[in-house]
Amino acid sequence: MSMERDGICFSPIGVIRSPFKNREETPIQVSMVKDVAGKVEVFADYQQGLQDIEGFSHIILLYYFHLSTSHPLLVIPFLDHEERGVFATRSPIRPNNLGLSVVQLTARENSTLHIKGIDVVDGTPLLDIKPYVPFFDEREDIRIGWLTERLRKEEEQSN
Amino acid sequence: MSMERDGICFSPIGVIRSPFKNREETPIQVSMVKDVAGKVEVFADYQQGLQDIEGFSHIILLYYFHLSTSHPLLVIPFLDHEERGVFATRSPIRPNNLGLSVVQLTARENSTLHIKGIDVVDGTPLLDIKPYVPFFDEREDIRIGWLTERLRKEEEQSN
Repeated sequence: MSMERDGICFSPIGVIRSPFKNREETPIQVSMVKDVAGKVEVFADYQQGLQDIEGFSHIILLYYFHLSTSHPLLVIPFLDHEERGVFATRSPIRPNNLGLSVVQLTARENSTLHIKGIDVVDGTPLLDIKPYVPFFDEREDIRIGWLTERLRKEEEQSN
Repeated sequence: MSMERDGICFSPIGVIRSPFKNREETPIQVSMVKDVAGKVEVFADYQQGLQDIEGFSHIILLYYFHLSTSHPLLVIPFLDHEERGVFATRSPIRPNNLGLSVVQLTARENSTLHIKGIDVVDGTPLLDIKPYVPFFDEREDIRIGWLTERLRKEEEQSN
């Protein structure tokens, strides 16, 4: 990692493996990926950093949407038909191409993490892993703006 | 954003303002920052991407721990006395220096977001904003490994 020009540079710490070989195959509804199994292959140089991770049932993956090449500030999200500000969406097409998924950690073998609930394209570069901790990551009294109506249907389907 | 050497380069989209002028002043217990007010100053070039964000009560900030200069794979986290694998902790000292905070969005004025619950140093470079959506971001049946005992105390204090 280094500062270059006005940018901040990262080196991937691993790669995410999923059954989805391209964006078209990748499900756009969270309810469809709940049981989708995948793997996180952490590069050997970083394996020591995985110590103690087995104790956590869920982890947060931060990754790079490597297939996104344009970065409009208004997007039509997959659950909608209207343009929205990109920071009010989870679109993979966004400034800095940063992605975030909470996945279930089912097992670890050396530097490979077996995961469930993955919704990214196979080969996605991984930038960080954090333990998912409700006390840090969950909030109450939530409003979700334009997504309210869209997700009502999605939640009905997934229950 | 560009690929350079083996790295992935980002440009900050804004800066986080908090009352904490350095790392020593920055609280290490989540329960202490619940009501701490701060601001997100999004650069004017990105303002259009904030459209529709007012509908969301909480947002996820992804940022760069710009003060962290070393990246050991084992760290002693603030709630612990033992070394842990860095990916099993939320330590700011980590490969790629990526930080994540869920904060309350209390108001928006043009390209400034007023927030509550911020736990980072003033001047932290912002890389992305995502809406916080329980359906995407919350999970059930959670185990939190080594943090279980440490957080029990913390939660008692915050209630």
